[in-house]
Amino acid sequence: MSTIVAVETRDVRFPTSRFLDGSDAMNADPDYSAAYVMIRTDADDHHEGHAFVFTIGRGNDVQVAALRALRPYLLGQDVEALLSDMGATSQRLVHDSQLRWLGPEKGVMHMAIGAVVNALWDLRAKRENLPLWQLLSRLSPEELVSLVDFRYLTDALSPADALSILQDALPGRAGREAEILATGYPAYTTSPGWLGYSDEKLQRLTRLAVESGFPQIKLKVGADLNDDIRRMRVARATVGDDFPIAIDANQKWEVAQAIEWIRALSPYGIAWVEEPTSPDDILGHAAISRAIAPIRVATGEHAQNRVIFKQMLQAQAMQVMQVDATRVGGVNENIAHLLLARRFNIPVCPHAGGVGLCEAVQHLSMFDYVAVSGTFEDRMIEFVDHLHDHFVSPARVLDGRYCAPLTPGASTEMHATSLAEFEWLKPENSATTLAP
Amino acid sequence: MSTIVAVETRDVRFPTSRFLDGSDAMNADPDYSAAYVMIRTDADDHHEGHAFVFTIGRGNDVQVAALRALRPYLLGQDVEALLSDMGATSQRLVHDSQLRWLGPEKGVMHMAIGAVVNALWDLRAKRENLPLWQLLSRLSPEELVSLVDFRYLTDALSPADALSILQDALPGRAGREAEILATGYPAYTTSPGWLGYSDEKLQRLTRLAVESGFPQIKLKVGADLNDDIRRMRVARATVGDDFPIAIDANQKWEVAQAIEWIRALSPYGIAWVEEPTSPDDILGHAAISRAIAPIRVATGEHAQNRVIFKQMLQAQAMQVMQVDATRVGGVNENIAHLLLARRFNIPVCPHAGGVGLCEAVQHLSMFDYVAVSGTFEDRMIEFVDHLHDHFVSPARVLDGRYCAPLTPGASTEMHATSLAEFEWLKPENSATTLAP
Repeated sequence: MSTIVAVETRDVRFPTSRFLDGSDAMNADPDYSAAYVMIRTDADDHHEGHAFVFTIGRGNDVQVAALRALRPYLLGQDVEALLSDMGATSQRLVHDSQLRWLGPEKGVMHMAIGAVVNALWDLRAKRENLPLWQLLSRLSPEELVSLVDFRYLTDALSPADALSILQDALPGRAGREAEILATGYPAYTTSPGWLGYSDEKLQRLTRLAVESGFPQIKLKVGADLNDDIRRMRVARATVGDDFPIAIDANQKWEVAQAIEWIRALSPYGIAWVEEPTSPDDILGHAAISRAIAPIRVATGEHAQNRVIFKQMLQAQAMQVMQVDATRVGGVNENIAHLLLARRFNIPVCPHAGGVGLCEAVQHLSMFDYVAVSGTFEDRMIEFVDHLHDHFVSPARVLDGRYCAPLTPGASTEMHATSLAEFEWLKPENSATTLAP
Repeated sequence: MSTIVAVETRDVRFPTSRFLDGSDAMNADPDYSAAYVMIRTDADDHHEGHAFVFTIGRGNDVQVAALRALRPYLLGQDVEALLSDMGATSQRLVHDSQLRWLGPEKGVMHMAIGAVVNALWDLRAKRENLPLWQLLSRLSPEELVSLVDFRYLTDALSPADALSILQDALPGRAGREAEILATGYPAYTTSPGWLGYSDEKLQRLTRLAVESGFPQIKLKVGADLNDDIRRMRVARATVGDDFPIAIDANQKWEVAQAIEWIRALSPYGIAWVEEPTSPDDILGHAAISRAIAPIRVATGEHAQNRVIFKQMLQAQAMQVMQVDATRVGGVNENIAHLLLARRFNIPVCPHAGGVGLCEAVQHLSMFDYVAVSGTFEDRMIEFVDHLHDHFVSPARVLDGRYCAPLTPGASTEMHATSLAEFEWLKPENSATTLAP
């Protein structure tokens, strides 16, 4: 038996705004940041659980405060008891009535709980000497069902529904696991399309993306329609008629405005439209979906929890689900998302980029392929080539595909040197500003 | 010209869990708390702006950290510039792209912004020597429209729609203001109905509520159906056949379970059903509304922002809107809620109780009567007789009606002695536990 003896946090911020990496219609100058948590135990194996919440700068200190508020829930706890019943462990945090008041199940407090849950998953995978995707892929359907919080889901997905989905995917698990190990998982890239880039840089990076084997690229849009038309023309001319180009408005539009804008860009060929309006607006996304079909609507990186995803599916408001690894209540809630998507036959294309999101989400998609959906159809993981070198086991993309992570854990551990170098200590090392 | 010279915060917690005041199906042992903020200026008038976020204990420190993160946005700012354009002032905070990532517009960060906005309203009302409800009631329709953030609302409420609503209510403003001053605003009480109370206490407090002139009471339900049936019988027998009894499940149920449970309680007469399921579940509330009509569904105390309220109205998912003063982006967003409710002809019955919510929401309802809806029909403000004596200008209810606040400000200022006595300094004065 071992116990948790330390829960440490770090406020880590990278000054990405200096180069306009990550700039879009809503986020002009993000400083990619991580509210980082490390869980240490007194076990002889010296394994630690590491995870984080991705933020874009100011407010990362608040996110760290939320992580610190969870320390009393962890310190002194029996590690084996926590890790052997991760369903109960995550629900004990998510449903704590006093913490729940701060959401419920949304925003700063929920994301902090998600990071702690993910740090425990990282620890468990290290202990079991498996990368997280393989650990999850080898759990029984019953064990997987026990991880999921079905509260508020049963009108769309019951435990019996989930069990049936997972049992249907049992045959072929081993073959699909071997396939992932051999050939990885499809990726697409957003690197060419940041709004702050010049047309020359857009063209150069677009060409590079195609040459690198990516089967799709994505452009940020939504600040100015004429600029968007010009940039779509540049990209389309570079890639040719048939290459998929997705666009991403990052929540910029009103419902009617979204429909108009997308129609104006549609002659240039749109693979999907991402975050056309408020991530909370299920009915708005449904109206947009109806108006722009067969162009697909993608959303989810800001979907606060499974209740939003459930409704997006019930209302046929989205045709591509973009799960995020640090927006919600951790791996457990992500598994609920994957099951919901399978139940409604919608592809999952995770949101990535930022700090460490590529590292985190690859495990979810690979698990989905092996044990849930069993298909690559219309599925790929976003890839952005930023900040990977700060991770102990960085995501690797070759010929447009994520390579299967082989290192035990959830790939969410950063180098101690990176944590130290980019720790945000006001005012000495203030990579980001205190106020705009 | 004056500037903001200090923004102070306090973590204030009352040990209410000791008496099970405030206990319900989801919140067994709340410690009513306030993440409190004080804005000081260098003006000669020595006025300060005070406001707070209401929480129920653990996590109040995280909420205070979010308030502190806003200090750099305020310190050194020109007070007159901030107060004279409260629309721009609130949107500068709400739309700060880096802070927005932590929501967007929900949870800890959004509530902190709301408290800062409300503290500025308190300051402005003190400077103008008017209680907030009167200050708002005397603004022109154009000034009121300028306060509202219409982002994501225009498919349901445009600035022109809002202007038209406010202009329609211009005639009779003075008469309605005089009426509020003379006779106040209807109240209902939840004091008898906490889940932790014995049947004897329920009966005694129910009788007291009727004798005190309240036109409606509310019972907490949702933990155990047989208990709920027994408690409904006790209350119904006490008040007679025609007296309205609302019930409140505090988000306890699944959608199908809610419909079943409400049908089982319906023989005892239900005025409305509050928070039957997840506050995020618009489609779920719509399904429940259709199934239990003509019993009405009420929700809103946990509605994270105006986008949720918009959809609840569009989907006919709620028949009573329960705005909350500290859940959202402050008075400005509350005005958007009142306009949405008027646009869809739904009554507003604010959520109150907790710490200081009665004090805060009375201003919203009185303003609504004078300048927006112009009617009391089906409208009343929740009242719970807890913790009022900690406020400099406590809410007063006489004969089942809130008395119009006469003191300049937003009634959100607590006594310095209360702030000092109940400040939560771990571990010396830890009224609430660190973990359950």
